Amino acid sequence: MINPFFKNHGPFHVSDLVSNLNINNLNFTKTDKVNDIKDLQSAIIGDITFFHSKKYLNLATKTKATYCITYKHLANFLPDECKAVCVDNVLLVTSKITSRFYPDAIYDNFDSTVKDITEIDLENKINHGKNVQIGHNVKIGKNCSIGHNSIIEKNVIIGSNCSIGSNVIIRNSILEDNVSILDSCVIGKKGFGFFPDKKKNLRYPHIGIVYIGENSEIGACTTIDRGSMSNTIIGKNTFLDNQIHVAHNVKIGDNCIVAAQVGFAGSSSLGNNVMIGGQAGVSGHLKIGNNVQVGGGSGVIKDIPDNSKVMGYPSKGLRQFLKDNK
Amino acid sequence: MINPFFKNHGPFHVSDLVSNLNINNLNFTKTDKVNDIKDLQSAIIGDITFFHSKKYLNLATKTKATYCITYKHLANFLPDECKAVCVDNVLLVTSKITSRFYPDAIYDNFDSTVKDITEIDLENKINHGKNVQIGHNVKIGKNCSIGHNSIIEKNVIIGSNCSIGSNVIIRNSILEDNVSILDSCVIGKKGFGFFPDKKKNLRYPHIGIVYIGENSEIGACTTIDRGSMSNTIIGKNTFLDNQIHVAHNVKIGDNCIVAAQVGFAGSSSLGNNVMIGGQAGVSGHLKIGNNVQVGGGSGVIKDIPDNSKVMGYPSKGLRQFLKDNK
Amino acid sequence: MINPFFKNHGPFHVSDLVSNLNINNLNFTKTDKVNDIKDLQSAIIGDITFFHSKKYLNLATKTKATYCITYKHLANFLPDECKAVCVDNVLLVTSKITSRFYPDAIYDNFDSTVKDITEIDLENKINHGKNVQIGHNVKIGKNCSIGHNSIIEKNVIIGSNCSIGSNVIIRNSILEDNVSILDSCVIGKKGFGFFPDKKKNLRYPHIGIVYIGENSEIGACTTIDRGSMSNTIIGKNTFLDNQIHVAHNVKIGDNCIVAAQVGFAGSSSLGNNVMIGGQAGVSGHLKIGNNVQVGGGSGVIKDIPDNSKVMGYPSKGLRQFLKDNK
Repeated sequence: MINPFFKNHGPFHVSDLVSNLNINNLNFTKTDKVNDIKDLQSAIIGDITFFHSKKYLNLATKTKATYCITYKHLANFLPDECKAVCVDNVLLVTSKITSRFYPDAIYDNFDSTVKDITEIDLENKINHGKNVQIGHNVKIGKNCSIGHNSIIEKNVIIGSNCSIGSNVIIRNSILEDNVSILDSCVIGKKGFGFFPDKKKNLRYPHIGIVYIGENSEIGACTTIDRGSMSNTIIGKNTFLDNQIHVAHNVKIGDNCIVAAQVGFAGSSSLGNNVMIGGQAGVSGHLKIGNNVQVGGGSGVIKDIPDNSKVMGYPSKGLRQFLKDNK
Repeated sequence: MINPFFKNHGPFHVSDLVSNLNINNLNFTKTDKVNDIKDLQSAIIGDITFFHSKKYLNLATKTKATYCITYKHLANFLPDECKAVCVDNVLLVTSKITSRFYPDAIYDNFDSTVKDITEIDLENKINHGKNVQIGHNVKIGKNCSIGHNSIIEKNVIIGSNCSIGSNVIIRNSILEDNVSILDSCVIGKKGFGFFPDKKKNLRYPHIGIVYIGENSEIGACTTIDRGSMSNTIIGKNTFLDNQIHVAHNVKIGDNCIVAAQVGFAGSSSLGNNVMIGGQAGVSGHLKIGNNVQVGGGSGVIKDIPDNSKVMGYPSKGLRQFLKDNK
Repeated sequence: MINPFFKNHGPFHVSDLVSNLNINNLNFTKTDKVNDIKDLQSAIIGDITFFHSKKYLNLATKTKATYCITYKHLANFLPDECKAVCVDNVLLVTSKITSRFYPDAIYDNFDSTVKDITEIDLENKINHGKNVQIGHNVKIGKNCSIGHNSIIEKNVIIGSNCSIGSNVIIRNSILEDNVSILDSCVIGKKGFGFFPDKKKNLRYPHIGIVYIGENSEIGACTTIDRGSMSNTIIGKNTFLDNQIHVAHNVKIGDNCIVAAQVGFAGSSSLGNNVMIGGQAGVSGHLKIGNNVQVGGGSGVIKDIPDNSKVMGYPSKGLRQFLKDNK
C-alpha cells in the first residue's frame, strides 16, 4: 500500500518532466507520457522509477517501469523495455520529478480545512474532548476516544476501539483497531529529508504514510514521521514508550517493545519480537532481525542478525559487552 | 501515602478473586473476604499482597497481610497468619487481581469530565489562560497560574504559588507549594508496564500517583509517569530540565539537579543533592545514593554509593573515566 | 543585538543596587548612577558589567563599562575608568543586580495578555488555525501560516513566508524570513539556569532571546531556550530535526544539519556547515568549528577544530573510533 493519500497531478509528458533539468541524452519521443513515480518494485508500465545504487541491482533488473532515472554506469542493468533517463544526481532529479507529481507532499503547513468535531458528521459516535479538530478524508471506527485539543488532519484512517490522547497531532496515517496514541504525539509529519544546498536546502516530497498495526501503543510525546517514497510502519501489538523518535521509512515489526527516548534514523527495519532498552539509537538503513534484544543506551550502527542480544556504543554481543566492562 | 485517588471496588471474596485464574491449592473458606491489595509493607489485616522474589524476603517475613500471592517455594517464608495463594506467575496474577480492585487504573483515556475553568467554582482565584480544562476532584492553592490549553484532569492537588505552563497535561498527581511545571509536560499518565503476550499485551493497572515536592521545577516537554503499586516521587527543591523522562515508581530526592534529555527507567531511586548531566540514562531498579554526580551522557547500570562521581557508558568512577579516555 | 524585549527598570543609584548585598568596599559616591547591565564587550559608559574568570581577561581590559562586579584578585585588570565592585560571588551578585534591572526576565509564567488572533489587528493577513493566541509586541511578516492552538506570546518578531505548526509556543524570539517551526516546539522560554541553594534554588533572569536565521527549519517537539545575558542563535539555512534540545546561549552557525534527539548544553557554539548525527550530545561552553561532522550518539566534551570528523563517547577522530571498534 503506497501513497493512498496524496493527489497525483500526472500524467506528464516525459519531455515536460525533464525540461529545466539539463538532461540531454533523452532517446524518447515528445508524446511519451508518464503516469506516476514509484520505487523499482512498485512501478508498473507507464510509470517512472529511479535506480541509484547497485544495492538495488536485483530489483532494477526486474522493474516493470517504462522509464528509470539512473546513472550512465547503471543504465545497462535495466530491462530492455525500460528507458533510462541518465542524470548526474539521481536522487535530486527523482525528488524534483516527484514534486511535479505530488506538490502537496513537500510542505507540511498545518491543515487549514479542519473543522471542530462538533460541527461535522462522522459515521460513528466518538468520545471526544474539547476543541478536537478533524480534517478532510478522515475515517474513524467504532468506540474510539479522542482527547482535548487533538488535531486529526486530513488523510487519516482510524480503526475501531482506538484511544487518542490529548494534544495529539496526526496526519497522513492509518491506524488499525485497538491502537492507543498517548498525549502530545506528533504522527505523520514529513520526515527530515532534503538536499543540502548552501543557499537554501531543497526539501523533497514525502508521499508515504505512517501505518500502525492493531493493538499497538505509542507513548506520550513520541514523533513518527511519514515515509518519503515508502511508508513508515509500526507492526501489530508493538508498544513504544514516551519520547521516542521514528524517522521516515522505518519499519518496526510485530510484538516489539521499545523503551523511552529511543531513536530510529531513517529507513531502518526491525523484525518481530524485538526489545530495545531506553535511550538506545539505531542508525539509518539498517536491518535488525527477529527476536533481537538491544540494551538500553546502545548505539546500533550495523545490521543485527536474528536472535541476537547486543549492547554498547557501538553495540556488540551482550556477553562481550559485559566482559569488556567488568 | 498510597493510592489516594483510585476507587477501590473491593472488598471481594477470595474465591471470587481467584476464580478463572486456575488456582487449585486454595486452603481457605468461601467466606474469606479481602479488602484491598497492597505491597508487603503497606498491607494490613484483611488485605492481599504479593511476594515474587527473595529480594523482598525481609519484608515478606513481617507482612501484616492476611493473604499473599506467591510461589510455592516462597510460601514458607510468610508469617503463620498470612495465607499463601500459590500461583505460576505472581506478577500476572497480582496484576489481574489489582485490576479487579482498581479497574479505573488500567486505561488512560482522556478525562471526558473536565470543564472549562471559567465554568466551575474553584476555592481560589487562578490566573489562567484560554481553554484551560479542569477535572473532578482537583484542588488548587492560592496564587497559582495555569497557561493556555492546559488540562488538569481529575485527581490532582496543586499547592499554592504554583506555575503551570501552557499545553500541560496533569492527572493523578500531587504538587506541593511553589512548584513550576513548564510548557508541554505530561505528568501522571500510566507507566510503560504490561505483560507481553504475542497476541495482545496485557496492560496492568497503575494505582500510584506522581508526587512533586515544594519549590521544584519541571522543564518543558518532560514526561513523568505515575507509579504502578507505589508512587513516582520528585523531592523538594529539585529541578528537572527539558525533555526528561521519569518512568513509573522512580523516586528522586531533594535538591537534585537533572539536565536535559535524561531518562530514568522504572523503579530506580535517587538520594538527595544528586546532579545528573544531560542525556544520561539510569536503568531500572537501581539505587543512586546521596550527593552523587553523574556526568552527561552516562549510562548508569548499577547502584551508585553516596558521594560518588561517575561518568561513562556503562558509568564508572569519574577519575577512571577521564584516565581511560585521555 | 542584545535584549530588544525586556524592559530596563533602571537607571539605579549604585548605592541602591548594592544595598542588601553585604558589599563594604565601595569607593564611589552616593550619586553615581548606572543605566544598564551588560557583558564586558557590550557595556558602554554608564553601564555596569561583570568579570568572573581570567578566561575573559582580554575583554575585561578593554571594557567601556563604568562599573564592574568582580573579585578582588581580578580588579586590577580593569581599565582605570572602570570602578570595581568587589564581591564574594560575582555571578550571584550579577544575577541579583540583573534582576533589579530586568525583573520580568526571571519567571516564565504564561503570557496572560494574549488575545485570539481573530480579535486583533495584524499588519499582514495570516493563514491561521483555530485557537491561535497572539501577545503584545508581536510582528508577523507577509504570507505566514500559524497552526492550531499555537501561542505566540509577547515579544516575538516573525519574518515573511514563515510556517509555524500547531501546538507551538514561542516567546522572546526573532524569526527571519522563510523559517519553519514544526508542531509542538517550545521556543524562547528561560534557560535551565539558577544558583543551587539547599533551601530554595535562586533563579536568575534570562534577558537574551532566541534568534533564528532565514530559511531554517526546527523539527517537532524541539525546545530552544533563550539566552541569559547573550542570545541563543540558530544560523541561516540550518535544519534541526525532531526532539532536539538547545540550551541557553548556544550559537549554531549557518547551513548546519542536526539529526533528531541531539542535545546542546548551555553556551556552546558551532561553526557553519556542521553535521551532527542523531542523539549526539554537546557539553556546555565548547567551541565546535566549521565543517565539523559529529557521528550519531557521540558525546562531545571538548572543543573540535574546523573540518574534523568525530564520533564516540567521549568523541574522538572518526578514523580512530572505527579502528578502536573494529
